[in-house]
Amino acid sequence: MSPRRPTPEELLDAAAAGDRVSLARLLSVVERGGGPSSEVARLVYASAPPYTVGVTGAPGSGKSTLTNKLVAVARRPEAQPEPVSRVGVLAVDPSSPFSGGAILGDRVRMQEHATDPSVFIRSMATRGHLGGLALAVPDAVRVLGAAGFPLVIVETVGVGQMEVEVASAADTTLVVVTPGWGDAMQASKAGLLEIADLFVVNKADRPGVDEARRDLRQMLDLSPASDWRPPVLATVASTGEGVEELWVAVARHREHLESTGVLGRRREARLAQELRRVLTARALEEVRLLGEGARFGEVVRAMAEGKLDPYRAADDLLDERGG
Amino acid sequence: MSPRRPTPEELLDAAAAGDRVSLARLLSVVERGGGPSSEVARLVYASAPPYTVGVTGAPGSGKSTLTNKLVAVARRPEAQPEPVSRVGVLAVDPSSPFSGGAILGDRVRMQEHATDPSVFIRSMATRGHLGGLALAVPDAVRVLGAAGFPLVIVETVGVGQMEVEVASAADTTLVVVTPGWGDAMQASKAGLLEIADLFVVNKADRPGVDEARRDLRQMLDLSPASDWRPPVLATVASTGEGVEELWVAVARHREHLESTGVLGRRREARLAQELRRVLTARALEEVRLLGEGARFGEVVRAMAEGKLDPYRAADDLLDERGG
Repeated sequence: MSPRRPTPEELLDAAAAGDRVSLARLLSVVERGGGPSSEVARLVYASAPPYTVGVTGAPGSGKSTLTNKLVAVARRPEAQPEPVSRVGVLAVDPSSPFSGGAILGDRVRMQEHATDPSVFIRSMATRGHLGGLALAVPDAVRVLGAAGFPLVIVETVGVGQMEVEVASAADTTLVVVTPGWGDAMQASKAGLLEIADLFVVNKADRPGVDEARRDLRQMLDLSPASDWRPPVLATVASTGEGVEELWVAVARHREHLESTGVLGRRREARLAQELRRVLTARALEEVRLLGEGARFGEVVRAMAEGKLDPYRAADDLLDERGG
Repeated sequence: MSPRRPTPEELLDAAAAGDRVSLARLLSVVERGGGPSSEVARLVYASAPPYTVGVTGAPGSGKSTLTNKLVAVARRPEAQPEPVSRVGVLAVDPSSPFSGGAILGDRVRMQEHATDPSVFIRSMATRGHLGGLALAVPDAVRVLGAAGFPLVIVETVGVGQMEVEVASAADTTLVVVTPGWGDAMQASKAGLLEIADLFVVNKADRPGVDEARRDLRQMLDLSPASDWRPPVLATVASTGEGVEELWVAVARHREHLESTGVLGRRREARLAQELRRVLTARALEEVRLLGEGARFGEVVRAMAEGKLDPYRAADDLLDERGG
């Protein structure tokens, strides 16, 4: 006899008590979407949301190593303003069909935290329908929050439209570039200039770091003025150089968001966007179901006989919906 | 005092009597979409649909010249099975924001029909929302049918996804390639193999025409067997060589579709697809309107306060819809 399947409530209680397997199972439910996912979402929704840091940038810019070092710095006893008790990392790869931990190659770099029960690292990928990740990531962030993680770092693998969307749906978004001609320009083209709260020139032991910083600053000079000008930091993630300063800059941005009330407004705007996505997914699902119904075939036949035009046919089907 | 705006009925009556300006106005209404477009669609829906021939292929394959010559051949007194009384041409360019006649560069090639009142040529482009063309083209085809055009040729400019969709939504779809290594392969990659009812190797006065025909036939050998094997024809559209044979092949395909009952089934499948598109457009419009409503802001605020999760929020908004 197989043991009874634990309920989402039981999984969440166990996750909050430190059970990583339960946490992983909850995240899998969220990732798969559908009804069970909404159930989990409802369960965690009332919890205080964790602070989220998004990390994005071109492949090869060293985002994983940097994330790895940021986790270590945030956890140190001497971290400012205070050490973070638990850190969750979501490594999001919309181009991969795989997910669930150490499957992505660069996840191995995170191994140094593998024995730290206060750090939870999870890869997320598209399981099924397009756009599903954009819905699953905020839910996964809230699951981590409800399980007692006050900080979640969302790292995206590439710089496609979906990656930029996912990374920018954070409280503080870091855009990572490397020294080298044109990188700043690339960042601008990919729409990264608009979403960056902080710029990081990583691999700053390579030539061209000053030029990269200068290019980014010049581009920022051309951007519309705002009450937060993204600082441009330099790091060598592989040695940890500059990562403490980066963490201080993240904390400073957070303080800015909190003191100005921007944090609340940003989160509300993100929630509105999320609600639009849920509504769109529901609406498209309704259309799919209508297309499978018996009435659909009847209506198409009436159209083929010239008795009904597609617009009236659509009105008829929509009116009958749920009636 | 400006004259009263003619009703769609009046425009259609005038168009059927040969007034090209009224016909152009009706097509503009259809292209713009929205309420007035549905009104026109309702008006023309009961008319017998015209026979549609889709023409697609890579840029530079000579589709416009070929379409031009096909129109001439179909109109000749000796045309088989009988000359076509009126021919409509819709030149569709989803990548262009322009439409309405001679704006596309290659439209000038169609000028030889400019003085023939039985030929009506119209460029269509994306006016506004994405996917709008996929809805507007079948409506435009029906407008031409209701205005007394028994044959409509839908020519697409490129070979993107939208072009392929538009061209394949015809009764007979011609895929045009040119001699040259890899063209057949390209056609296969672009999904053209699946939609072709006839292949045309145009510019057949150039070297490589035999290889191109052979490549296409070999690919067809690898395709699943069907009761219609697409013939591979060769034309030189600039001189008209082979275009009569092409028109005979189109007539033969039409006869095949009619005698087997496939024509009715295909048209019904297209109508089902069209209805799904209308339903999707309506559903997304509903979501857009929900997002602008006063309730949306209230619901987002409740979400921000942790009182409501996005899934329940979506349910609430959808339940209140139209209530």
